[in-house]
Amino acid sequence: MNEFELIRRYFAAARCAQGGDGVVLGIGDDCALLALPAGEQLAVSTDTLVAGVHFPESCDAFLLGQRALAVSASDLAAMGATPLAFTLALTLPSANEAWLAEFARGLQTMAQNCSLALVGGDTTRGPLSLTLTVFGRVPSGQALLRSGAQVGDLLCVGGELGDAAGALPLVLGQREAAADISEALLARYWSPQPQLALGQALRGRATAALDISDGLLADCGHIAKASQVALKIELEQVPLSAALRAFAGEQQARLCALGGGDDYRLAFTLPPALLADLQADWPEIRVIGRVQAGTGVELLDAAGQPIEPPRGGYQHF
Amino acid sequence: MNEFELIRRYFAAARCAQGGDGVVLGIGDDCALLALPAGEQLAVSTDTLVAGVHFPESCDAFLLGQRALAVSASDLAAMGATPLAFTLALTLPSANEAWLAEFARGLQTMAQNCSLALVGGDTTRGPLSLTLTVFGRVPSGQALLRSGAQVGDLLCVGGELGDAAGALPLVLGQREAAADISEALLARYWSPQPQLALGQALRGRATAALDISDGLLADCGHIAKASQVALKIELEQVPLSAALRAFAGEQQARLCALGGGDDYRLAFTLPPALLADLQADWPEIRVIGRVQAGTGVELLDAAGQPIEPPRGGYQHF
Repeated sequence: MNEFELIRRYFAAARCAQGGDGVVLGIGDDCALLALPAGEQLAVSTDTLVAGVHFPESCDAFLLGQRALAVSASDLAAMGATPLAFTLALTLPSANEAWLAEFARGLQTMAQNCSLALVGGDTTRGPLSLTLTVFGRVPSGQALLRSGAQVGDLLCVGGELGDAAGALPLVLGQREAAADISEALLARYWSPQPQLALGQALRGRATAALDISDGLLADCGHIAKASQVALKIELEQVPLSAALRAFAGEQQARLCALGGGDDYRLAFTLPPALLADLQADWPEIRVIGRVQAGTGVELLDAAGQPIEPPRGGYQHF
Repeated sequence: MNEFELIRRYFAAARCAQGGDGVVLGIGDDCALLALPAGEQLAVSTDTLVAGVHFPESCDAFLLGQRALAVSASDLAAMGATPLAFTLALTLPSANEAWLAEFARGLQTMAQNCSLALVGGDTTRGPLSLTLTVFGRVPSGQALLRSGAQVGDLLCVGGELGDAAGALPLVLGQREAAADISEALLARYWSPQPQLALGQALRGRATAALDISDGLLADCGHIAKASQVALKIELEQVPLSAALRAFAGEQQARLCALGGGDDYRLAFTLPPALLADLQADWPEIRVIGRVQAGTGVELLDAAGQPIEPPRGGYQHF
């Protein structure tokens, strides 16, 4: 089977996920064509996942397809963008039809979940890896940047942290857990839910935002640096799931939340007056600290005293 | 060195290549932001190059950077799009600074050549491969598609074909050649010139177009299928360079032109009345055949009799 047939056969469903809202031309020509409504800008993000580095070589193809797109869509959420389309560059050691069918099904599931249409890509032979590029649209000037945090703002997160990092021993088959705990943690690893609706709701409200992919401390460092402010995080306010506490214990759970990556929850800064309104619609939002004058990220104990943070986020090199 | 520093250090030049014509926000946030003038659409294309499959593992990093971007930019040319920006997903076995500096320099050279600004990407550890996604803009409804060829149109190409395929024994170090021949063929392999200006000139003139990446016969097959027409190619009209003829001989040179990939010249269909005007500006344009009713691609000898084509284009699987 050649690459053209492969793509046509297995990705037909994802291609048709969206009827055309902004997609003028999809797969099949030299380029895809996208249209933007007047007054909107295009948000673009590219992510690569490599077998043996970002996911286990032998992992389930359905779960991989689902997770790969969720990870990329989360960058759209972080900008407050409305999802539009994506391209997939898939490098495969061989054309295994069963694997492709499952992978395409996982991709399609998340594509529908996120309202993203597959508009193009490339299929090549080589060591297994995926590069997804996602496209969203956002009203001009309203994208959520990392650089707008203001002294006095609250530092918030979009829900419990650390589950995905905590799930790693389960993902790698190194430990077992009771079915309910295992299911809860593995779901957070394999099918993170990009906070797209929350991101859109934060437009015009949050002063800075990103999605937590490198770990809370490392990612807050990005906001602090881009905004030229200090972020103070109250350790006891960092939300942890019951499943993670039960599986990893309080101390390890905190380490997962602070330093583990792959949460794909939003972290954002918010003027205090806007919190109540937002929490009415999004009760999972938690205030974990505040923005002060200065630089860097500081972790505080319950008494407000600085404490030493554990080692930071994931680095590839 | 972590991945953020890597990206900052080596790709700073390419990032700054363009001041902002359409680039609202470049590298450094969760997404890049692009703006489009009213009445224009965004053209998007993704290509992956894998070491050992699409280029020799040990090849020169400067040449690789240059070629990778040219290959992707050629898809913009094929749509008649004006170049805007690109993202780079770079997977590397290790962070070799000398290699990265040379690769970034090659990328930057082609980025300036094509007026493409680097706006984002990802750097990951793994077997060497690159995925580039390029963005261009095109007036709404004027993109050059593969599907518009009309019976009676001429079939044209944007210059001599086969040099890149002919250069492969030189690229792989399997053969040697006189300096002038070697230089001419290797230049066509390592720094193909995307026909961006020609593509833009074809807007409103060509009825169908693509860039030849899989080989002339295979790519003409794409036009024939998408346009539901037959393409008749006169073998003796297919333009071959003097360097390729001298290096490979007439017979092999024709095989390279018909079946070899990587030419990145445009092939397009054109109403006959528009040829003279176009050739006045683009004397390298050659008419190689015509569009007739029917299906598929047929090769004709000098007497107009059908002849058997050699085996078709490159397939990854």
